Amino acid sequence: MQPADLTLSAGPNDVFPEVRAAMGGPILYHYDPVFKERFRDAEAKVGRIFRTDGHEIILMQGEAILGLEAAARSLCTRGTPVLNLVSGVFGKGFGSWLTAIGAELHEIEVAYDDAIDADAVAAYLDAHPEIKVLAVVHSETPSGTLNPVDRLGPICRSRGVVTIVDVVSSYGGIELRSDEWQLDLLVAGPQKCLGGPPGMSLMAVSPQAWAAIEANPDAPRGSYLSMLDYRDLWHGQGRFPFTPSVPDVHGVLAAVDLLLDEGLEAAQARHERVARACWAGVRAMGLRLWPRSEAISAASVTSITVPDGLTDTQVRDHARSRYGVQLSAGQGAGNIIRIGHMGNTARPMWMVAGLTAVGRTMIDLGAQVDLGAGIEAAMASLAEPVRVPVGAST
Amino acid sequence: MQPADLTLSAGPNDVFPEVRAAMGGPILYHYDPVFKERFRDAEAKVGRIFRTDGHEIILMQGEAILGLEAAARSLCTRGTPVLNLVSGVFGKGFGSWLTAIGAELHEIEVAYDDAIDADAVAAYLDAHPEIKVLAVVHSETPSGTLNPVDRLGPICRSRGVVTIVDVVSSYGGIELRSDEWQLDLLVAGPQKCLGGPPGMSLMAVSPQAWAAIEANPDAPRGSYLSMLDYRDLWHGQGRFPFTPSVPDVHGVLAAVDLLLDEGLEAAQARHERVARACWAGVRAMGLRLWPRSEAISAASVTSITVPDGLTDTQVRDHARSRYGVQLSAGQGAGNIIRIGHMGNTARPMWMVAGLTAVGRTMIDLGAQVDLGAGIEAAMASLAEPVRVPVGAST
Amino acid sequence: MQPADLTLSAGPNDVFPEVRAAMGGPILYHYDPVFKERFRDAEAKVGRIFRTDGHEIILMQGEAILGLEAAARSLCTRGTPVLNLVSGVFGKGFGSWLTAIGAELHEIEVAYDDAIDADAVAAYLDAHPEIKVLAVVHSETPSGTLNPVDRLGPICRSRGVVTIVDVVSSYGGIELRSDEWQLDLLVAGPQKCLGGPPGMSLMAVSPQAWAAIEANPDAPRGSYLSMLDYRDLWHGQGRFPFTPSVPDVHGVLAAVDLLLDEGLEAAQARHERVARACWAGVRAMGLRLWPRSEAISAASVTSITVPDGLTDTQVRDHARSRYGVQLSAGQGAGNIIRIGHMGNTARPMWMVAGLTAVGRTMIDLGAQVDLGAGIEAAMASLAEPVRVPVGAST
Amino acid sequence: MQPADLTLSAGPNDVFPEVRAAMGGPILYHYDPVFKERFRDAEAKVGRIFRTDGHEIILMQGEAILGLEAAARSLCTRGTPVLNLVSGVFGKGFGSWLTAIGAELHEIEVAYDDAIDADAVAAYLDAHPEIKVLAVVHSETPSGTLNPVDRLGPICRSRGVVTIVDVVSSYGGIELRSDEWQLDLLVAGPQKCLGGPPGMSLMAVSPQAWAAIEANPDAPRGSYLSMLDYRDLWHGQGRFPFTPSVPDVHGVLAAVDLLLDEGLEAAQARHERVARACWAGVRAMGLRLWPRSEAISAASVTSITVPDGLTDTQVRDHARSRYGVQLSAGQGAGNIIRIGHMGNTARPMWMVAGLTAVGRTMIDLGAQVDLGAGIEAAMASLAEPVRVPVGAST
Repeated sequence: MQPADLTLSAGPNDVFPEVRAAMGGPILYHYDPVFKERFRDAEAKVGRIFRTDGHEIILMQGEAILGLEAAARSLCTRGTPVLNLVSGVFGKGFGSWLTAIGAELHEIEVAYDDAIDADAVAAYLDAHPEIKVLAVVHSETPSGTLNPVDRLGPICRSRGVVTIVDVVSSYGGIELRSDEWQLDLLVAGPQKCLGGPPGMSLMAVSPQAWAAIEANPDAPRGSYLSMLDYRDLWHGQGRFPFTPSVPDVHGVLAAVDLLLDEGLEAAQARHERVARACWAGVRAMGLRLWPRSEAISAASVTSITVPDGLTDTQVRDHARSRYGVQLSAGQGAGNIIRIGHMGNTARPMWMVAGLTAVGRTMIDLGAQVDLGAGIEAAMASLAEPVRVPVGAST
Repeated sequence: MQPADLTLSAGPNDVFPEVRAAMGGPILYHYDPVFKERFRDAEAKVGRIFRTDGHEIILMQGEAILGLEAAARSLCTRGTPVLNLVSGVFGKGFGSWLTAIGAELHEIEVAYDDAIDADAVAAYLDAHPEIKVLAVVHSETPSGTLNPVDRLGPICRSRGVVTIVDVVSSYGGIELRSDEWQLDLLVAGPQKCLGGPPGMSLMAVSPQAWAAIEANPDAPRGSYLSMLDYRDLWHGQGRFPFTPSVPDVHGVLAAVDLLLDEGLEAAQARHERVARACWAGVRAMGLRLWPRSEAISAASVTSITVPDGLTDTQVRDHARSRYGVQLSAGQGAGNIIRIGHMGNTARPMWMVAGLTAVGRTMIDLGAQVDLGAGIEAAMASLAEPVRVPVGAST
Repeated sequence: MQPADLTLSAGPNDVFPEVRAAMGGPILYHYDPVFKERFRDAEAKVGRIFRTDGHEIILMQGEAILGLEAAARSLCTRGTPVLNLVSGVFGKGFGSWLTAIGAELHEIEVAYDDAIDADAVAAYLDAHPEIKVLAVVHSETPSGTLNPVDRLGPICRSRGVVTIVDVVSSYGGIELRSDEWQLDLLVAGPQKCLGGPPGMSLMAVSPQAWAAIEANPDAPRGSYLSMLDYRDLWHGQGRFPFTPSVPDVHGVLAAVDLLLDEGLEAAQARHERVARACWAGVRAMGLRLWPRSEAISAASVTSITVPDGLTDTQVRDHARSRYGVQLSAGQGAGNIIRIGHMGNTARPMWMVAGLTAVGRTMIDLGAQVDLGAGIEAAMASLAEPVRVPVGAST
Repeated sequence: MQPADLTLSAGPNDVFPEVRAAMGGPILYHYDPVFKERFRDAEAKVGRIFRTDGHEIILMQGEAILGLEAAARSLCTRGTPVLNLVSGVFGKGFGSWLTAIGAELHEIEVAYDDAIDADAVAAYLDAHPEIKVLAVVHSETPSGTLNPVDRLGPICRSRGVVTIVDVVSSYGGIELRSDEWQLDLLVAGPQKCLGGPPGMSLMAVSPQAWAAIEANPDAPRGSYLSMLDYRDLWHGQGRFPFTPSVPDVHGVLAAVDLLLDEGLEAAQARHERVARACWAGVRAMGLRLWPRSEAISAASVTSITVPDGLTDTQVRDHARSRYGVQLSAGQGAGNIIRIGHMGNTARPMWMVAGLTAVGRTMIDLGAQVDLGAGIEAAMASLAEPVRVPVGAST
C-alpha cells in the first residue's frame, strides 16, 4: 500500500517544505552554543505567536497531551476546586485527568456540536467562588468548534480564577491573544495550524499561573511532567531537564519563522478563506456541517455529519483506497468525517480535492449528494478576491 | 556563530544520512494505514535489536528520561523495596525518582570510574530477600563505563527480582541480549549507538515485568507516563494513547533498518574498533582514561580525565571555537572530557579528528601532551585489518 | 510571492519524495566505488524501462535537449538524407537542427492536433530509398498527442532506415517497447512520467544506430555532445568523459527503482486512469480537448483549447494567482492550456484540483463552462474500480 | 560497500547542509514566476562572487566542461590565432578543443608542477600581434597550482586579446577579481570552493568577449553549446533555451547565499588556513608537495607526490578501504595524491583526518613517513589564532 496522495486529516499532516528541510538537517548536540541560541530563538518566536509579552514560554518535549497533563498536575491537586468546560471530546478528556488527580471537579457541559456560553460560566463562577482553576478547549478539534476564550479570560481573571486553555488546534491559524484575553496557561501543538512537526508542547505561562503552581505542593518536580524543572533548570541555570528533540526544535523554529514571515493576520485570513469555501461546498452538496453555526466553527477543520446509514469508517476507508485522500473521523464526537485545512494544508485547491473526494465517496456509498453544486459553491467562494490584511507580507 | 564542523558529543550527534532523509520525508496522519504498518514494523525491529522474542516492545514518545521515569513509576510505589545500583550519574539520578515515589531505597554505590560487582549484588539480595526490584545502568554514559548486566540478570531472575535496565547508550553498539541475560524492563534511546533521532524511548518489557506492573495499584494510567495505556490502547485496541511523532518513528525505522542491514555483530565490532584506537591514542598522549580498566569501558564514548589545573569547560570551549569540534563534559561524573563515537559517529577518522583536537587543545591550554605519539598509536590500532564478523553484511 | 500550491505543468513538476530524499542526500566523489556501482545500476534499470536487452544505455548530463542534439549530430552530417516527421513543436524544432547540420531534410508534416500516418511514412520511404535516418517524436508534449512509433519502427528497420525517437514525455508512463518496436536511438528525460529530476538525457542506442554513428565522420568526439566519448571512455575505460551530476544520478536511480517497484504496466495504468478522467471532465465542462481524438492522446498531459476571446497567458496567470495552480501553455502548438499528470503528479485528486481550477478560472474570465458537470464526469470516471495489471505490485 | 566516511576529493565533495536541503526541496516548473525570480537572483549573486559589475552572467546547465567548450567554440573558429597556456592537464586539454575547432594554436607550456610566467606571455603576445584569444587555467586542479591571472588580464586587455579563464576550482575560495583583473570570459563550477552541486557552468562574459563572439560566424546557435541562444532567448525574451535543472539552480542559489553571508574574504581566509596547515603537515611528515613553491599553490587542494615505489591507486584504494577516506589522484598530472579542502570540506579537522589517513596509508604501504610530526605541524599551524577579515560575518 502507498501513502495517501493527500493527507487532509485533523493532524498531523504534511508540513511546509522548509520545516521538512529543517527536520532533515544536521542534528547538533543540545549544548552546542548554536543550538542553545536556536532554542531560545524558538521560545521567543513561539511567544510572539501567542501574542504575549508577559508569559514565560516552555517547550516540553512530547506531544501536546504531555503539556496538557503537565498543566493539570501543576495547577491542581487533591481537593482543588476546578471548573472544567466540556463541549467536546478533549474537554471531556481533560476532566478525567482532574478526576485522577483527585481535584474537586465541576463541569459545564454542552452538546458536542455546540459551544460554551460565557455568561453561564460567569454565573457559575459567581455561584461557586471557591473555584480556583478553569479549564477550557479553545478549538475542539474532533468537533470543529470554537469556545469564546476571549470572553472567558476576563471573566476568570476578574474572579481570581486561573485558566488552562487548550489551544492545540487554534494556535497559528485562528485568532488568539493571550495577553489581551487574560489567559493564563496555554498549551499548543506545532502540528496543526502551525504546519510544524508533531512531538512538542508549546506552552505559555502567566505570572498568575506560576503563582498558583508554586502554591501547589504536589506540582511535579523531578519528573518528565514538571514545568517547574524546566523553568528552574533551563531558564534558571541554562541546563535542560532532559535532552530536547533537536530535530523537533529545528522544525518548530522553521515553522514559526514561516508564520511570522507570512504575518499572523494573513495566516488567519488564509485559514478563514479555505474554511468558508469548504463550508459553502458542504452545504451546497446537501450535506450537513456538524457545528450548529458558522459562528462557532473553527477554521482549521471542517466536520461533516455522515449521512444516515453510513459510518465514518466506511467513508474514510473508501476515500483513502479509491481516491487516495486521508481524512479523519470524529474521535468519538459523533458520526463525523473531518477535512483538515490547517497549516500547510490550508491551501484552497487541496481542500477542494478533499471535498470532491468526500462528495464522490458518499455517492459511491449510496448517499444523495449534489457533487457538482458543491464544488461550484466552494469555487464561487474561493473566486472572491483574496483580501490580504494590511501589513501582511503575502 | 556556525554549527560545529564535527559533533562528537555523548549524544545527540548527527545521524545517518538515511535517517535524516526519513526525518525530512512527508509526514503522514498517524492513522494512515501505511503509518500504522510502519509503526508495527519499527516495534518488531526494535525488538530484534534487543535480542528478544519474549518481551513486548513499547515506543514511548519522549526522550529516554520519559521511559526511565515511566519504568520507575510503573514498577515501584510507596514502600516498594528496590535495590538501586550506582556507578555514575545516571544510576544516582534514578535513585532520586525512587525516593520521590516513596520506595524503600537500597543502594550499592561504587566510585564513578568503577563498575558494580555482580557478586556483591548477589550477596546483598540474599541478605535482603524482601527486595522486589533492581535498577541498573548498563552503560554509564557520563563515565564511559559498563556494568555486568549479563551476570546481574540471572542473579535477579533466580531470586524473583525484576530488573530495570538503562541501556540508553549501549543499545545497538554494545553487546546486549535481553532474553539470554534474563533482563526485564529495558529502556533505550535511539540517539546514541543507533544513530537515530533523539525524542523516543524504546522499551522492552518481559512478562515478569508486566506481572509486577499489574500488581502495582499506582502504576500510571491515563497519563503520558503510562506503559499500561500504551499496551491496552495501542496493542489492545489499535488506538494510540497520544499522537506519536511521525518523523521520529520514520527516523527510528530508518536507523533500525540500517543496523539490521549492517548486522548487530558488525556494528558492535565497528564501535569496538574505534573505541580501542581512541583509548590507545589517549594513553599514548600521556592523558588518563577515566575508567579504571578497559574491561569496564564502554565502546560508545571515551572519557578522558582533564589534566590538573584545567577544567572541562575550558577544554570544550577551546576545541569548539578553535577547531570546530563539539565534545561533551562529564555531567557531574568528574573533571572529564568525552569524545562520542556512537552510531553514525563511530567512524575511525572522525574519532581521530576529535582526538587530535582534544590533544592540541590541551597543549594550547598549557598541558603536557604528546600529540604525535597519540595519533600514531591510534592509527596503529586502526591499521590492523578489520575483522568482519562471520555472517555480517559489511 | 509564494511557490504554487500545486504544480501541474508539463514538466518539470515536483518529484516523488524518495527522489527528493536522494537529491538531498550526501554527494559522493564520482569515482567513489559506491557511486560507480550506483551509476551502472542506474544504467541497467533505465534500460529495463526502455524494455530493451540490445541497446546500450547512455546517460548524458544535461536536459533531454542535449541528448536530442547529440543524437542528431551523431547520426547526421552535411548531406545526410533524413525524413523528419512533424506533428508538433518538438518535431518541427528537430528539423531546425537537421538544417543547421546541413542534412538533406525531408519532412512529413501534419496539423499539430493530429498524428503522423504510418502508411504515409512507408510510402514516402519507398519513394525515397536514399533516406537513411528518420526522426519522430513519440509524445508531442506541447500538443498532448502520440505518434505510432510501434508501427514506424518496423517500417524503418525493414528499409534500413535508422530511427531517432524522442520519448521524453512518454518514457515511464506510456507504453514503449524499444526492442519489440525496433527503434534505434531513443532519448528520454527523467522529469516527466518518471517523476525524476530534470537535468539528464536518458538514451538507448541500438547496434544499428552505433553502426551509423561510426560511419559518420563528423559524429562529435572530444565534445560535451559526444555519444562516442561516453561509450569509449566510460563503457570502454571506466572513465567519465565529464563529471556526472551525482545528485541527478541519485535522483534518477531513486525514480527508476520506484517505477520498477510499481511495475511498468501499473504505472501506465495509473497515467491512463488519471488522463481518461481528465478528458471526460474537460468534455463535460463544455471545453474542447486539443487532440483530434482520444486514440492519439497522450496520457501524460491534457491539452485544452482555450476558448475564443481568451489567451493561454490569461488563464495561466489567473489560475496561478487566484488558485495557486501552476499550468503550462502550448509552447507555440496553439492557444492551449495544459494540465500535466505525469510521474509524481499522475495522482487522481491532484488532477481534479487542477481541472477545477482551470474550469473556474475560465468562468472568472467570462467563458461558458459547466464546472459542476465537469467535475462530476471526472469523478464518475475515477469511481470505476481500479484495474491493477496482473503481476503488478501496487 | 559503504560510501566513504569522509570525501576529500578534488570535487565533487559533499556540500553544505543548506545546499543539500535546497537540492531536496520541492521542484517547481521552470516558468513558475517564483522560479524565474530565483534564477535571476542566482545570476546576480554569482556575478557578485565573480566580483564584476560589467560582465553578463550565464548559467549553462551542464558541468563546467560544457561551459569551457562553449567558450572555446564561441570565441574561436577555423584559423583563429589563440595562445593557450599550459601548466597542467586542464590547460593541455583545452588545446585539444582548439585543435578540433581548427584554430591556429600557439602554446606556452611549463612543467605541471610549475606556473606560467606572465612576462613570458607578454613577450609572446608582443611577438605575435595576430593573436586574438588567450586561454588560461587559474587553478589547475590536478596539480594544485595557480596561474597569475591577475597579471595576465591587463597584459591581454591592453593588447586587444580576449581571455578565456578557467576558474572552476578557484571561484569562491581563492581571490578572483574579474573586473579589476580585466578578465573576459570566465567559467566556474559550483562543486568546488563554492560547496554547491556539480552540474552547472557559471559563466561571466565581458563586453569585449561578446563582441568577439558576435564577430565569429561559427559561434554556436541553436545548440546546447550556444551562449548566444542563452543571451538572446533568456536575457532577451525571458524564455529558457532549454529546461534548466531546477534543483541545481536551487542548490547554487543556496551556496552563493551562504558564501555571500560568510563574506568572500572570510571564505578565502578559511581555505587559506586549512591549506597552509595541510602543507605544513605534509612537509613535516617527510612527504613532498607537488607544486614547486607555496607561492603558486592553490588553497583548494593539496597535491602530494606519491613516494617512489608506490602508485596513486594503491594509496587511494588503501585509504578508502581501511580508513574510509576518499581521495583523488592526479588525473594524469603526475604520480600524485590529492586531498581536497574546498567549499564545505575546507574545515580544519576534516583536512587533518584526511592527512592522517594519507600518512598512515603510506606507512602501511611501506613508505617512510613521520606521521606524528606531520600532525603536530598541521595542528601547530591551525593553533594560530584565526584572523577574521575586517567586515566579515564569521
